[in-house]
Amino acid sequence: MSAILQQAPTGTRPAGRWEKYKAAVGGLTQYWYPVATAAELRRKKRKVVTILGTQLVLFYDQGGYYALLDKCPHRQVPLSMGRIEFPGHISCIFHGWTFDLKTGELAAALTDGPSSPVTRKACVRTFPAEERAGLVFVWMGESKPVRVEEDVPEELLRPDARVYAHARITGGNWRHAAENGFDEGHVKMVHRSALWVAFRNVSAWNETYIERTPDRVWVRRKQKKVNLFADYPGLGTWPKKRFWKPDPAKGTVTGGSDHGIDVRLPAILRVKQPGKADWTHYEWYVPVDENRYYYLVLAVTWRKSLWKRFTFWLRYWTYILWVHHYQFNGQDLAIVAAMPESSPSPAYRPDESIVAWRKLVEEEARTPGK
Amino acid sequence: MSAILQQAPTGTRPAGRWEKYKAAVGGLTQYWYPVATAAELRRKKRKVVTILGTQLVLFYDQGGYYALLDKCPHRQVPLSMGRIEFPGHISCIFHGWTFDLKTGELAAALTDGPSSPVTRKACVRTFPAEERAGLVFVWMGESKPVRVEEDVPEELLRPDARVYAHARITGGNWRHAAENGFDEGHVKMVHRSALWVAFRNVSAWNETYIERTPDRVWVRRKQKKVNLFADYPGLGTWPKKRFWKPDPAKGTVTGGSDHGIDVRLPAILRVKQPGKADWTHYEWYVPVDENRYYYLVLAVTWRKSLWKRFTFWLRYWTYILWVHHYQFNGQDLAIVAAMPESSPSPAYRPDESIVAWRKLVEEEARTPGK
Amino acid sequence: MSAILQQAPTGTRPAGRWEKYKAAVGGLTQYWYPVATAAELRRKKRKVVTILGTQLVLFYDQGGYYALLDKCPHRQVPLSMGRIEFPGHISCIFHGWTFDLKTGELAAALTDGPSSPVTRKACVRTFPAEERAGLVFVWMGESKPVRVEEDVPEELLRPDARVYAHARITGGNWRHAAENGFDEGHVKMVHRSALWVAFRNVSAWNETYIERTPDRVWVRRKQKKVNLFADYPGLGTWPKKRFWKPDPAKGTVTGGSDHGIDVRLPAILRVKQPGKADWTHYEWYVPVDENRYYYLVLAVTWRKSLWKRFTFWLRYWTYILWVHHYQFNGQDLAIVAAMPESSPSPAYRPDESIVAWRKLVEEEARTPGK
Repeated sequence: MSAILQQAPTGTRPAGRWEKYKAAVGGLTQYWYPVATAAELRRKKRKVVTILGTQLVLFYDQGGYYALLDKCPHRQVPLSMGRIEFPGHISCIFHGWTFDLKTGELAAALTDGPSSPVTRKACVRTFPAEERAGLVFVWMGESKPVRVEEDVPEELLRPDARVYAHARITGGNWRHAAENGFDEGHVKMVHRSALWVAFRNVSAWNETYIERTPDRVWVRRKQKKVNLFADYPGLGTWPKKRFWKPDPAKGTVTGGSDHGIDVRLPAILRVKQPGKADWTHYEWYVPVDENRYYYLVLAVTWRKSLWKRFTFWLRYWTYILWVHHYQFNGQDLAIVAAMPESSPSPAYRPDESIVAWRKLVEEEARTPGK
Repeated sequence: MSAILQQAPTGTRPAGRWEKYKAAVGGLTQYWYPVATAAELRRKKRKVVTILGTQLVLFYDQGGYYALLDKCPHRQVPLSMGRIEFPGHISCIFHGWTFDLKTGELAAALTDGPSSPVTRKACVRTFPAEERAGLVFVWMGESKPVRVEEDVPEELLRPDARVYAHARITGGNWRHAAENGFDEGHVKMVHRSALWVAFRNVSAWNETYIERTPDRVWVRRKQKKVNLFADYPGLGTWPKKRFWKPDPAKGTVTGGSDHGIDVRLPAILRVKQPGKADWTHYEWYVPVDENRYYYLVLAVTWRKSLWKRFTFWLRYWTYILWVHHYQFNGQDLAIVAAMPESSPSPAYRPDESIVAWRKLVEEEARTPGK
Repeated sequence: MSAILQQAPTGTRPAGRWEKYKAAVGGLTQYWYPVATAAELRRKKRKVVTILGTQLVLFYDQGGYYALLDKCPHRQVPLSMGRIEFPGHISCIFHGWTFDLKTGELAAALTDGPSSPVTRKACVRTFPAEERAGLVFVWMGESKPVRVEEDVPEELLRPDARVYAHARITGGNWRHAAENGFDEGHVKMVHRSALWVAFRNVSAWNETYIERTPDRVWVRRKQKKVNLFADYPGLGTWPKKRFWKPDPAKGTVTGGSDHGIDVRLPAILRVKQPGKADWTHYEWYVPVDENRYYYLVLAVTWRKSLWKRFTFWLRYWTYILWVHHYQFNGQDLAIVAAMPESSPSPAYRPDESIVAWRKLVEEEARTPGK
């Protein structure tokens, strides 16, 4: 058992711990968050999103991506109800207050004529918006934004990255989603019934350790020892042996990847697929508010040849989307939605992974003053 | 810019202003309000309505209209669940407490027999109810009611008035609905896309002034100057010219009626239709509670000949109902439902109309003590 | 009028009365409550129920009935989402914490291996569960349970009892449901329109008295005098005479049974059917929370011969279920759902029955300290 967990024995929670983590119930503000796919926004031209409790309207206009507070400063009607009367500007549906998408400045109050005294005297808050890796990122912080590249895993920025994204808004707190994603214990139980592992071995329990990646950006969980089957006193052997699963001596063991599972700030999970499967799974848990999050999952590959790209395209749309993004990850969504706010931890040894993630937030997350 | 608006510069709200107006968030109590059409109540015999936060049950019985608190004083079950066991009386469904529709007095507690000691010892609150102009009006005030004619536009009481009514309960605060109805600026933007004005010109902006009607009952907004098109620096000309619209030199300009737009207490809008259209549009914003209102719109004509009445009947059912009451007015409903409680004003010159309406409430609305 | 009612004159409520009754708004805790039928639980194997505000999961496993708090102590995910990995144990879906259904003790934390230090160090709360009369009873009290037979009418425990049960969760407070069940006055008004009494006479009002059954377990309401018709001054005769109803001199009068209507703690109603109908009607009002209750109705017969049992089976499925349990009792549900929390009483003579029921709770209900 790690030193971390020893400090927090089973069933007790030291007073005053996780203060920053608890305060971040509605989200960490000083980060770039993905809020849409670029393809989706280019197609629909506008999209209403709520992020960190704030309703925004995104626009795609003349090749640029824009994010504005979705509230006209005049009568507070959503700007997303408005019309693009002039390129690069949104006119509020109510009285035609017309804002520059780039700056948020009031370029005209149409229904008051060109001589309106309010022209250039009002503005709507804008949020920095950038497209990277086929995703639209928005900076929600109060202070000057960091470079967007600081909040996107660098391998996604490579020109040969092929990103397949699937997203939905779902119930639950973003921190529980992040905890569940990096959680050591749940894979063995929650996902045991998933079609994704029907022909793979899922171990009973692992002995793991936590380390930082060489670039120190990610926290990584790796296994020391994988216990495929175990005998529980008074209960029996678990899991049951299945004739259709591969011989454990040779077959892949889920949760037993040599690569480890990585998590980083603000709340990004990375799972390099084991064996010959040359793709990587990512998850973003973007806080909508305290009770909902935007759950973005990616399947990313860096194949060079057109043929290999085609076979991955085929595999994604016929298999990965359905069996991994829908069913397998859908099991996680059901769990996270069922966790009450007060859900405690740590309480047993595999919670060491949860503790490591919480420590990362507690000690390294950017704060408004930073 | 009017003196009123100059007192309230853009972006600021003088402290202490609109106190009475703000206090009336749930409705002005000392007024007669229409709550049903007479035809509807005659057909259904009873109707449950909530008005100013109070649930009433209306009855049509033996040629009379009655309004009672929808709550039996015995166990507080709604009287609207009851049965008419005797003419002129409603018997509660629970224990047969039987109330006189006129007085609210307990005429019998049926399940306790004729000798019941509670007979004539209990009563349910009744509200004055009157039929005028095909509408059923209820007095919600605590004090003695004024004459119902004082709260109905007098021209509606003329025997030759033909009233076509359409009503729905919709989201939003009644004051925002009234503000939107009398608002100078919104017509040019909100309704520009309405089918109703597809072949009419809608001006870019008007220069207006506010006056009282000669009888001082209504506040009227009229235009000094109609600016059909305008050129906005850095943006261009607005609105776009459309070949299918009439020549502005000759065609009708919506929002440019010589008659003006009228508003009066408690919250009634009147729009005499311009040109040769000999009918008038009315709107009532009847508070259900702070977040909903009963939106009643009327199309009224005073044509004498049977033929002219028939052509209006035809025009109403084939055109006005669909294109004005549903689509055009439906645009207003969407805006009002989207306005948050705190929606501020005034903020630009056309808000002068809003200010005039608020002043009317602030300075002239009846209050319980009056 | 009884002494009880005289102490509480019409329209007044003595301060401080019904304190225990009012405090029991969410339910009396020290009782066995039926929460499912045994047949339903045997078929579905598990069922989630909320009772007295607490969410439980019931299991049928290896011939036994079990009730557990539906919340894993580790991360508070519902145990009802879990899997039976070993007989007699439920494994939480999240991390495989495995609890003994009998004791609630943590037998293993599967995903932490057999050596997990938390084994036998945690537990989930269990609730005593027993099957009687085809129903599953759960003890919700904090203290040691009484014998389940103390909370089940003894005639239901007879081996020849045939119990037909129908249950639903419905809106309203359980106390209002109990009051309505035992209420003297409502039958004459609420149920007058029921198909069940289409060919029976329902009296206008009864003169009744309250007594205890010889075993003192039940409070019983009986009639001194049944007034089939009555003449109300200023209103007329009520109810109307119907040619299709039997001659009152001979026919059955509903609410005029010689047997009386019985109520007992915690909230059970018993109505022995009058005349030759050899069956008895029961109702349980089981508190789900303050605003909902589990409404369980039984039709019970003790017929000896197979033929008579068959005819009752036929009569139940073709008639009693539809005409009594659905329509007749559905009228009660609508009333109880419409009663606000503050619903006052007593207010007229037949409320004597309500008062007697409240006194029973006030003076005899078990309390946690007892």
